[in-house]
Amino acid sequence: MSRLPNLFYAQSGGVTAVINASAAGVLAAARAHRDRIGRVYAGENGILGALEESLFDLSREPATAIAALRRLPGSAFGSSRFPLGTPESHPQHYARLLEVFRAHDIRWFLYNGGGGSAGTCLHVAAAAKAAGYPLSVIHIPKTVDNDLARTDFSPGFGSVAKYTAVSVREAALDVASMARTSTQVFVMEVMGRHAGWIAAASALAQEADGSGPPHVILFPEVAFDEAAFMAKVEATLAREGYCVIVTAEGLAIHNPALAPEAPVAGEHGKDRLNVHTGKAAPYLAELIHRRLGVRCHYSVSDYLQRSARHIASGVDVEAAWQVGEAAVEMALAGRHQVMPALRRVAGSRQVRWDIEAASLARIAHQEVTLPRSFISRDGYGITSRCRAYLLPLIQGEDYPPYQGGLPRYTPLRRVKVARRLPPFDNGMP
Amino acid sequence: MSRLPNLFYAQSGGVTAVINASAAGVLAAARAHRDRIGRVYAGENGILGALEESLFDLSREPATAIAALRRLPGSAFGSSRFPLGTPESHPQHYARLLEVFRAHDIRWFLYNGGGGSAGTCLHVAAAAKAAGYPLSVIHIPKTVDNDLARTDFSPGFGSVAKYTAVSVREAALDVASMARTSTQVFVMEVMGRHAGWIAAASALAQEADGSGPPHVILFPEVAFDEAAFMAKVEATLAREGYCVIVTAEGLAIHNPALAPEAPVAGEHGKDRLNVHTGKAAPYLAELIHRRLGVRCHYSVSDYLQRSARHIASGVDVEAAWQVGEAAVEMALAGRHQVMPALRRVAGSRQVRWDIEAASLARIAHQEVTLPRSFISRDGYGITSRCRAYLLPLIQGEDYPPYQGGLPRYTPLRRVKVARRLPPFDNGMP
Repeated sequence: MSRLPNLFYAQSGGVTAVINASAAGVLAAARAHRDRIGRVYAGENGILGALEESLFDLSREPATAIAALRRLPGSAFGSSRFPLGTPESHPQHYARLLEVFRAHDIRWFLYNGGGGSAGTCLHVAAAAKAAGYPLSVIHIPKTVDNDLARTDFSPGFGSVAKYTAVSVREAALDVASMARTSTQVFVMEVMGRHAGWIAAASALAQEADGSGPPHVILFPEVAFDEAAFMAKVEATLAREGYCVIVTAEGLAIHNPALAPEAPVAGEHGKDRLNVHTGKAAPYLAELIHRRLGVRCHYSVSDYLQRSARHIASGVDVEAAWQVGEAAVEMALAGRHQVMPALRRVAGSRQVRWDIEAASLARIAHQEVTLPRSFISRDGYGITSRCRAYLLPLIQGEDYPPYQGGLPRYTPLRRVKVARRLPPFDNGMP
Repeated sequence: MSRLPNLFYAQSGGVTAVINASAAGVLAAARAHRDRIGRVYAGENGILGALEESLFDLSREPATAIAALRRLPGSAFGSSRFPLGTPESHPQHYARLLEVFRAHDIRWFLYNGGGGSAGTCLHVAAAAKAAGYPLSVIHIPKTVDNDLARTDFSPGFGSVAKYTAVSVREAALDVASMARTSTQVFVMEVMGRHAGWIAAASALAQEADGSGPPHVILFPEVAFDEAAFMAKVEATLAREGYCVIVTAEGLAIHNPALAPEAPVAGEHGKDRLNVHTGKAAPYLAELIHRRLGVRCHYSVSDYLQRSARHIASGVDVEAAWQVGEAAVEMALAGRHQVMPALRRVAGSRQVRWDIEAASLARIAHQEVTLPRSFISRDGYGITSRCRAYLLPLIQGEDYPPYQGGLPRYTPLRRVKVARRLPPFDNGMP
């Protein structure tokens, strides 16, 4: 085993179509610094891997693993929603993390996630400091929701944005061509509990001037006004003969009819959330059918939208890779409690960005919603400013290779690291 | 105007990602026979266009229209579910069709649809014969459901099959990587009221030996047995830690809980159907959550699946084109009341086919469901024979060109033909 200190990488929270591209960037950069970084370990099922001392040794992956990672959707090592708690509420978790890090001489902790994971980074850093353990903590941005602070956009968002815009453009052609004698209203539900970024991206399917479908977009940021909404739908039907609606799942937030107490399908479980994928679209379809008597269909893409690597945005894949790479560079430069943040460089048609180290203190547990200046006056569309922001993020196609008619998604070897510690009971099955 | 007789083409019923490729094949073949075919007319909103004398003159489209049609999802001219009835029940419809055909010297009627449309072809042919009007009637196969008789497969099916297999492969990677601490069961609902072909195609996401997700497939052809289904899900969870289920919308047929009388969202309207897109998946997710207490998510692709031209099967696009081309050749060869049917040529790895004229008498109103030999013994998967049948149909990618990050779907010019007759009241708004 190498005498050099080792690096630990883990993925956290909901995955994206391109989170593994960040892992690829981490691995490529680490391999370019073999003189300084010993092994690269990845946590099995995210932070649980560190608690349970269940580590994959990425140093034992072949050279081809980097290209495979770059195009693999889901999480190559498993991600996690395990509630780690704080050093105050769950000191045993943090003590164990440091014990595992010490046992495997891990000096760099790279954590790939959203705003909550940025908070975890700060907790881990505080625990290490309190214990006098030398650990450099870097957060790598990831979220389909685009709600991370201090970065121009979040890797993962561009791909779900592209999937959404492509899908609604195609479905709208279908509905328009059948509306005279069949379905007149189509409702597409997209992710976004509190932030309407994905819903906003559906507007990229419109013409550049905002005309054409989707005709109505419902954002979590805008209180749902049933009367105004119905009037908008009716006016669209009268004018166009059909109506395509995109709703964020977070419509429910402003809608007592979709309260979490109601028995619902679509998302269940012990950690019952406020809103549920698959509630908003059927609710709206039923409402419109009842009020207008027209035939309605709806779609709920759910995980399909965030795993659709086959239609990933080239810009998004590249950004995901670059933040992974930059995280390693920042770690080696001695940066601590920072995140590689994307800063857009203005004045070019193609999106270009610089990467800067942003302090985690201003990122942790923040949630950036759609600014009012990005939402059209009537609340059912986006402004040209929003369009100018979004459009660069869906540019470029990054098709996976196909074999036998299907994308070839090659899993890694995932070689386990020998355990050095007794087992730890984290209360999980 | 040309002195040569003219050809009328119309699309019928639910559209597919590749129905316009058939239109492109018709147009290309007709242009290759300018010495025999005068104008090519397309009905606006399908057969309604003929009733209402609302015709597009495809002869006035530029040469680039053929390539544009080949990649345009939806229906380029509008499709229709208008109930034409029979010559006996609605003689006025058929009299009007012949009046319009006579006024525009239309001698070829090419109708692009499913089993019901094949029946309409026979009615139109009978009405023309009774009126002594010389009309050659050709049906062009189209359906996402793959339920047409006398053809090895239906153009439109290969593309929804590819969409389904790609989507479930991607979503399964997502679910597998999160299952330890998040969603453990994912249910994907696909189209198919009476025939499980699309559900079966999801199995192409598995390994060649049938292992891996989707773990459970529910077909309309198999009676739903709640106890056996729950046992299968539980066993899968115990073995794999997660479970991916694909259900045809037609699960409802065997399920009193999903009876049409229940108030439902997803599909409504005056022509209330027996089953409804968007009922089966939430029903199963709720059932599993209630019984096992695990977290479930579901997706309903609805129209997204049949309009997903961005991930169309190359084989499917080519087949759709060829049946359009062949229909014109058959018409010119004096064939009547036939459909260009695909006959698979055995013995090659790549799918190859001949095209033969099949009599409409044996196609009209038929619905080919999944044979028992294609369904695995336990009823939750497919056999190797089914896999060998399906796999060739999703081969090849046929990406549309992209502009600004989105597929460029160019509409036609759609030049209207001047009316020669008084209006006709068909009772439609």
